[in-house]
Amino acid sequence: MKRIVILGATGSIGRQTLDIVRAFPDEFEVVGLAAGNNVELLFEQIDEFHPRHICCISPPDTLPNGIKFTPMEEMVCLEEVDTVMVATMGSVGLMPTLSALKHGKAVALSNKEPIVMGGAIIKDYEARYGGRVLPVDSEPSAIWQCLQGEENEIRRLMITASGGPFRLTPVEDLAQVTPEQALKHPTWQMGKKITIDSATLMNKAFEVIESHWLFGVPLENIEVVVHPQSTIHSMVEFADGSVKAQMGPPDMRLPIQYALFYPKRLSNEMIPRLDLGVCHSLTFEPLEPQRYPCFVLGMEAGRQGGSCPTVLSAADDVAVHSFLDGKIAFTGIPKLVEQVLSEHQRMPGLDPEELLEIDRWATARAKELVKRAL
Amino acid sequence: MKRIVILGATGSIGRQTLDIVRAFPDEFEVVGLAAGNNVELLFEQIDEFHPRHICCISPPDTLPNGIKFTPMEEMVCLEEVDTVMVATMGSVGLMPTLSALKHGKAVALSNKEPIVMGGAIIKDYEARYGGRVLPVDSEPSAIWQCLQGEENEIRRLMITASGGPFRLTPVEDLAQVTPEQALKHPTWQMGKKITIDSATLMNKAFEVIESHWLFGVPLENIEVVVHPQSTIHSMVEFADGSVKAQMGPPDMRLPIQYALFYPKRLSNEMIPRLDLGVCHSLTFEPLEPQRYPCFVLGMEAGRQGGSCPTVLSAADDVAVHSFLDGKIAFTGIPKLVEQVLSEHQRMPGLDPEELLEIDRWATARAKELVKRAL
Repeated sequence: MKRIVILGATGSIGRQTLDIVRAFPDEFEVVGLAAGNNVELLFEQIDEFHPRHICCISPPDTLPNGIKFTPMEEMVCLEEVDTVMVATMGSVGLMPTLSALKHGKAVALSNKEPIVMGGAIIKDYEARYGGRVLPVDSEPSAIWQCLQGEENEIRRLMITASGGPFRLTPVEDLAQVTPEQALKHPTWQMGKKITIDSATLMNKAFEVIESHWLFGVPLENIEVVVHPQSTIHSMVEFADGSVKAQMGPPDMRLPIQYALFYPKRLSNEMIPRLDLGVCHSLTFEPLEPQRYPCFVLGMEAGRQGGSCPTVLSAADDVAVHSFLDGKIAFTGIPKLVEQVLSEHQRMPGLDPEELLEIDRWATARAKELVKRAL
Repeated sequence: MKRIVILGATGSIGRQTLDIVRAFPDEFEVVGLAAGNNVELLFEQIDEFHPRHICCISPPDTLPNGIKFTPMEEMVCLEEVDTVMVATMGSVGLMPTLSALKHGKAVALSNKEPIVMGGAIIKDYEARYGGRVLPVDSEPSAIWQCLQGEENEIRRLMITASGGPFRLTPVEDLAQVTPEQALKHPTWQMGKKITIDSATLMNKAFEVIESHWLFGVPLENIEVVVHPQSTIHSMVEFADGSVKAQMGPPDMRLPIQYALFYPKRLSNEMIPRLDLGVCHSLTFEPLEPQRYPCFVLGMEAGRQGGSCPTVLSAADDVAVHSFLDGKIAFTGIPKLVEQVLSEHQRMPGLDPEELLEIDRWATARAKELVKRAL
């Protein structure tokens, strides 16, 4: 029986995590649920899963009997918790992730920003306190699955990218695309922020940085391949030239379930099956850098390291929400990110509080630049 | 340092095994080499690799100093041997494979017929005497690689087939195809017998039976998918719906090397790298049974089990050589195999001598039927 806390319980990954809990009711006890503003759904979840601890931005005056309001950083350290699903958004997940690792918990990490910002600290905490980060994102999960049982040198990671909804749009038309068009992801159903990051391929740069930290592979040995069908979730090439790939239907419940039951794989009727028997074609194309300037910026910030990925992710967060709110163009996203990055002087070896300070600076600066341009 | 014996040293797999020995001279000692009639090449190999034991069909009157003529079944049991590469053809490999297993050796098995004929006995010997069969064939090797580190239930094996040179030939034209056309395999360079078996897809039925024994998966959970590019060598679907695939360039030295160094993977400049970065397309189609009657016969013989796969492989051997010699048509191969199978009464639970007796009967009967038809 796994005693679990879910941070971001009302978001897309949080709800799908509860789908897995629902499918295997004897395997889980939900100790705590944390949400943002969607208090209505949080209370439905409380009725169904009976956590003893909850957290949300504006708690109601009275809580149901036996339920305590517990801040996220405390909830993840509770004695009775063994697994924490971090499915929050942006930098919010950093401190709870570090707290959980410090207390030796298994952290299923869906929220990319904590590891993009604080990869070095997370790896250090894992080594020092015995907690462990388990990938949830489908691409790092694919790599993790391919590495099972392999003590062998990794020659190259190949992360696949669908290419997003504008893979075939003339580059000169990208300035005119609307949020509605950008939210139509060709293969995956996800939250709004990550869907836009998938259209700009910023998300892929985040995954490259995440995989670098999770699997200890140098950035120059991580390649991104455009694979519009999203059937192969990622690949690993070993020293001998053999390549392993992990495939599956585009359903996040599969990697969520893998992280929660690792190393066991359980049958779950909910998850559709992959069918290659019907005529099927998997295609691969090189990534066009001029189409995806966010990816180029992201990779450069990743290579710079230190404080740069924090500035990258904070500026991107503001840029994506400004685009969704109609304040900037789609092509304004990389411009804003580039501007904030250019105003920042890289700092190495920071502690979590310093990273959050930089995160606040980059967020404020990006918002100011958006306001000024309006 | 691995002390190795190679049976079938002058054939395609034998020569490629020696390529691996040549690439890693400090890792191997060649204890013995066995060949058929290609004595000239065998003597070149003796000069280069200095085995102490050799075997061939017609040994010359005098042997170089310090070299002994040792029958295959004895060579594989020598105290100083730890790994045996069985790269012989047809039923010839059965007895040496069993001898090696009986003496606790690792058997890298490239020759499919021993396990197609004697899968039950081989598994029994592995369990009783502690020897181990290591797959060499690219498809079973792919499955083996995908299973590393997985203690999980296998839902399905998906073995890929190129479809051979006649995948798009109108079925009614198959009676007229020549040996020259059939020997042009679209993706792999192999020996003649296996190239024809790849054109009829008999080879795929052999691989299904082989994989059934090697991995303990019921035949009904093994599927064959036509994948003309031969980039994905095979796939495994686990209980949770996740699919792992192994890919690589079509170069047999990769699976040979994997079997020899298992579980280690060593870098080898000789082996080309897979490049998916250039525009690339992997396609999958269902297998058309009416195009591949040998596959249908093979699967049926596999399901029957007992003595039937022995009759299948013996009759196929005669049929393929008769086709290569211009004695029967390409479409005569399944007809001959079907006729011999229909004259045989299935027998269960046979010992190796009884299997070889049936092999001899089926061989003689198939030859008689070819002669009678001429």
